Amino acid sequence: MKPNRIAVIGASPRMNRATRVIANPKHVGYAGLVFPSNPKYAEILDLPCYPDLGSTPEPADLVVVAIPAEQVPGVLAGAVENGARAAVVLSSGFAEAGSVGEARQAALERLAAERGLRICGPNCYGIFDIRLGLATFSADMTEVRPGPVAVVSQSGGFSQAIADHLMQQRSVGLSYIISCGNQAGVTIEDYVEFLVDDEDTAVIGVYAEGFRQPDKLRHVAARARERCMPIVVLKVGRSENARQATLAHTGTLAGTPEIIDAVLRQSGIVQVTSLNEMLDTLTLLAAARRYRRGWRVTVLSGLGGECGRAADAADRVGIELPSLSASSVATLRSFMPDFANPRNPLDGTGAMYENAEIFPRMIDTVLRDESTDVLAINMRANVPKPGGWAPSRGYARAIADAVRAGTDRLVVCFTSFAGADLDQEVVGPLAEAGVPYLESTETAMLALRHAREHRRFLERPVPAAVLGSPRGTHVAAPDRHPLDNTEAMRLLGEFGIRLAETVVARGADEAVEAAHRLGYPVVLKIDSRDIAHKTEVGGVRVGCGGATAVREAADEIVAAVRRLAPRARIEGLLVQRMIADGTEMIVGIKSDPLFGPAVVCGFGGIFVEVLRDVAVRMPPLDAATAHEMIAELRGSALLKGARGRPPADVAALADTLVRLAALAEAHRDRLGALDLNPLLVLEEGRGAVAVDWLVELA
Amino acid sequence: MKPNRIAVIGASPRMNRATRVIANPKHVGYAGLVFPSNPKYAEILDLPCYPDLGSTPEPADLVVVAIPAEQVPGVLAGAVENGARAAVVLSSGFAEAGSVGEARQAALERLAAERGLRICGPNCYGIFDIRLGLATFSADMTEVRPGPVAVVSQSGGFSQAIADHLMQQRSVGLSYIISCGNQAGVTIEDYVEFLVDDEDTAVIGVYAEGFRQPDKLRHVAARARERCMPIVVLKVGRSENARQATLAHTGTLAGTPEIIDAVLRQSGIVQVTSLNEMLDTLTLLAAARRYRRGWRVTVLSGLGGECGRAADAADRVGIELPSLSASSVATLRSFMPDFANPRNPLDGTGAMYENAEIFPRMIDTVLRDESTDVLAINMRANVPKPGGWAPSRGYARAIADAVRAGTDRLVVCFTSFAGADLDQEVVGPLAEAGVPYLESTETAMLALRHAREHRRFLERPVPAAVLGSPRGTHVAAPDRHPLDNTEAMRLLGEFGIRLAETVVARGADEAVEAAHRLGYPVVLKIDSRDIAHKTEVGGVRVGCGGATAVREAADEIVAAVRRLAPRARIEGLLVQRMIADGTEMIVGIKSDPLFGPAVVCGFGGIFVEVLRDVAVRMPPLDAATAHEMIAELRGSALLKGARGRPPADVAALADTLVRLAALAEAHRDRLGALDLNPLLVLEEGRGAVAVDWLVELA
Repeated sequence: MKPNRIAVIGASPRMNRATRVIANPKHVGYAGLVFPSNPKYAEILDLPCYPDLGSTPEPADLVVVAIPAEQVPGVLAGAVENGARAAVVLSSGFAEAGSVGEARQAALERLAAERGLRICGPNCYGIFDIRLGLATFSADMTEVRPGPVAVVSQSGGFSQAIADHLMQQRSVGLSYIISCGNQAGVTIEDYVEFLVDDEDTAVIGVYAEGFRQPDKLRHVAARARERCMPIVVLKVGRSENARQATLAHTGTLAGTPEIIDAVLRQSGIVQVTSLNEMLDTLTLLAAARRYRRGWRVTVLSGLGGECGRAADAADRVGIELPSLSASSVATLRSFMPDFANPRNPLDGTGAMYENAEIFPRMIDTVLRDESTDVLAINMRANVPKPGGWAPSRGYARAIADAVRAGTDRLVVCFTSFAGADLDQEVVGPLAEAGVPYLESTETAMLALRHAREHRRFLERPVPAAVLGSPRGTHVAAPDRHPLDNTEAMRLLGEFGIRLAETVVARGADEAVEAAHRLGYPVVLKIDSRDIAHKTEVGGVRVGCGGATAVREAADEIVAAVRRLAPRARIEGLLVQRMIADGTEMIVGIKSDPLFGPAVVCGFGGIFVEVLRDVAVRMPPLDAATAHEMIAELRGSALLKGARGRPPADVAALADTLVRLAALAEAHRDRLGALDLNPLLVLEEGRGAVAVDWLVELA
Repeated sequence: MKPNRIAVIGASPRMNRATRVIANPKHVGYAGLVFPSNPKYAEILDLPCYPDLGSTPEPADLVVVAIPAEQVPGVLAGAVENGARAAVVLSSGFAEAGSVGEARQAALERLAAERGLRICGPNCYGIFDIRLGLATFSADMTEVRPGPVAVVSQSGGFSQAIADHLMQQRSVGLSYIISCGNQAGVTIEDYVEFLVDDEDTAVIGVYAEGFRQPDKLRHVAARARERCMPIVVLKVGRSENARQATLAHTGTLAGTPEIIDAVLRQSGIVQVTSLNEMLDTLTLLAAARRYRRGWRVTVLSGLGGECGRAADAADRVGIELPSLSASSVATLRSFMPDFANPRNPLDGTGAMYENAEIFPRMIDTVLRDESTDVLAINMRANVPKPGGWAPSRGYARAIADAVRAGTDRLVVCFTSFAGADLDQEVVGPLAEAGVPYLESTETAMLALRHAREHRRFLERPVPAAVLGSPRGTHVAAPDRHPLDNTEAMRLLGEFGIRLAETVVARGADEAVEAAHRLGYPVVLKIDSRDIAHKTEVGGVRVGCGGATAVREAADEIVAAVRRLAPRARIEGLLVQRMIADGTEMIVGIKSDPLFGPAVVCGFGGIFVEVLRDVAVRMPPLDAATAHEMIAELRGSALLKGARGRPPADVAALADTLVRLAALAEAHRDRLGALDLNPLLVLEEGRGAVAVDWLVELA
């Protein structure tokens, strides 16, 4: 990451993508050497230009290329011969561009794997090391501000937009800006791994279309946890259209959204859904490094109308706005006008603008309020008209003074909506005092929630055995097939998953015999590995109360299945003791091609089918995480005994999930889907029993 | 609204709230006369200052007051004597400030009611008529832009912030800015009524803490529908804290959120939840006055990373991004670089910046694409650095040219996130060509959805009998009580609501007799108007299959109720024929103190209790609206026959809702709550039957 001699191939005197890589280091005072290389020119931006890599005065250790894609693999191979150890490929036309491009990208990947060339890109803007002034970065960046935030983005445009906005508008400094495009060589996970141990970096923001190294992602997240460093990710690709778009943009497979959500969440990675939320979250996390344990927020505003809005926005995302203590209210009444009505959110009223003493006293009171952990001050900070009224400058000074005088409360400022230039005479002094300035009530509240949840994640004990050794990329075996019933029961039994007592019968006689042994009433089911949904083909009869009923059911089931699924191989009949009570759950395992298997859990029946109410986690699971999964289901109240039912055996359900996770771990590369549908969760103390199952294995 | 002589009471040479009202008309060139009035000064801002209202050269027809609240009622009474017909009360200290303030506000309300004084405020910024330059408005507004958007806001600060942002950043012009504070005299509804018929206004944006005249609101919304004029409302007060905050801010009762949602929705009023969404929606609606019927959106971006994000954002809010037609793709391929991958969202790629001919041809192609109704172009438009690169200026010209050349497609532009000043050399030419500039992908997609839904609302036939004559404010009778069973059955029967056949029995003998008549099995229930939830006190026995079972159940029910609800008066027992099937719904009526009764509908059991999945509409209802209510429930698939059930009689359920609405209309002022819980919706063709009910009436 720290080259001393950079060759830039494809620059021209006209400002193009490569020329910007020559201009930026000059602007920011890079100490190393930059060699433009282009046979057409003798000089570019006052630097001598060389016809090829071999003719530079010293061999370049990093080359930046912005030439037609088809020429890139050859030029890079030459660069390696010439001693280059790293390359930034700005050119487009690789994996995002159909099969020809894919072949080119494969050539780059071979150079990386076989020749050890570290490639950033292709189809990217490159890397800007702000402190070093090392700007192998193809965007117009003349003013930079060093600081603790690193931005990693597949998209070059977003890397620049995010960085620019943080530095110019929010007075937030950056350590690195990295745009890695198609990730042919170095991946997002590699850059994050570097940044997590970088001394200048305290917060990492990532714009990702897809990950390439899931195990490394989890490992660097674990390292970030040790260093208490937040990683904020905006992951694109939730919709099918977006997944197609990421393929077209950076040739990236976006992955299964629910499984990626689970990975990020379990890794303590903060996930945001909009760029405004990203900007506010990074701004807050870059500043908010000391705080109390609690997160009760008191809002102060000079706009009465904001008070109701802030309360609604806080309520929507689950931020607690406590009542001010009685003594704080009394203090506020003592110096605020009669018509003021001190509460939280606290309305400074027009008096705040007319009497300069009121605002500092309000802050002082809230910063001493015993029920307040966070003071969130709403004030406009747009650039005033020339000579216009700018009361927020005075407020910013008062806030900075109060923070400098010492407080253990987190103090943040925010506008009611995002838009228009921020007054740096407001934002600047606040930033110097460590007070972040956020834009829009909604994203400010989300940012506070993210900071709170990240802090809570750090406070929780590290789950046992969360990390095995890196296992490389999961490659799903292509030839998975459903196990037959005996194999499936053996595998589930091996992991201690409790199944309804089931006997395999070859025909009606054996079924009656089995039913006698199990005790009536019984359930009869078709036994066929070719049938995933038995009820749909008439393959299930419940409540068979005696021998006659079993015989009848056996005949009818076989007849129905022959009629409705004529090609299915019928292995026989399954006879189960009937379980009449319990809450129906669907639990199982779902696999992502890259991330591998995840454990899923939802309520049976309408909840899964109609509401898609499902919790997902990556194995391994501990009991606490399994309980967290269950609690997060919208219907979880049902298990606690809603509607007059007895409380269900949630511990047994959690235990089943932990066992499923162990099974998923053990058969990671062979496993396809696995369903226990339904798993009946019985009354507290009576356990949980799977009554039907389906296992796909290679 | 059009005064010629304005007196301003309470101004001083130091810029205070009243002085601004003197400064603004001067800045914007108001043609009428302004008389500062303050006994302490001889001149303010170069205008002669008068000691009192009696000494102005001509009597003022409008007075603006910014004096301590306690003096306001007296001064206004004097103003009325002096000929004033209207007043703007900037002062705070009224209904928002406890009981003393409430008395002052009551005095203003009497002046309005008895002396015909039209009062704006108190606790407001006043009114700015932009075209007339009539700025009785207490905020620093030196530059204004006339145009079609009217802003009405209880909060003065927000009225200014919204107006400023629209005019300065978005190049959107305004007709009126109205801040009406506590609404002691003229209400939001009154202002909207005026604006709906104002020739200069085409879109109305409202920031409301609470409404005062619900019937007028519905009537002005109906008038707006006739004029195809959208009204966009940001309503505060969803959370309990926010409801307290609105009381403290403008002394406003926020009302029941679900019922207000229903009123706004049925009136075709667009509801937004954030100011950024408000700004984008107003900007879009102010421009988007011609379009095709469809709303299929094609997104074009010069930022590849935006394509996936835009697809996700569109998917989240239900905006359709169709595939480009094959011929459009072929055309795009003909002039775009090899590595481009034309699809929707369409990535212009780096080539768009390097070859100026590509962008206009892309627009041209999409504007001819047969599956595209709306072209949404993503591009940054922040003010460039001095001498910096500003490609969007060229794109803006190309877009304006293309629109001027004629297209029936709606064209909009948007940024990826909101923040920083917009380049008026981009936004200005776009605005002149009728192309709105929106900030942030997420709010742009929401704005498009709002525009679509508003247009669809206008296209739907006006529901029959939606409007009766105005009925004034609903005043709920305070002495509502539960009806006894016979009265309740009579009332429900009168409106044709089908009830399970039910016989009232005085004791076990009568119950057995009734059961014989009804046919077994029967359900026995306690009959007591003091018991709202019969099951909770052991007051229900289902499935009584014969005389003995009925006798036992009767004894046990009475014993259980005596034990668990010892104070309840027991009127007897209810015997019902048992209905074993059907989908359990809860339907009924809920009342808001101001808006009156609303019809509610949800699934019984866990859906209502756990998920709070309820649809709400105001009466009267037509069948189409009742069907819309049902369709909007998350569980509605259950009624269509999910999970192997037969389809339910949705028409009968809808009919029950229409009948409940008629009942609610007829007993509007007497009705409290009404519950049919459960209403069993039987198989298609078999109807819907209420099996338990509770009616509260005055």
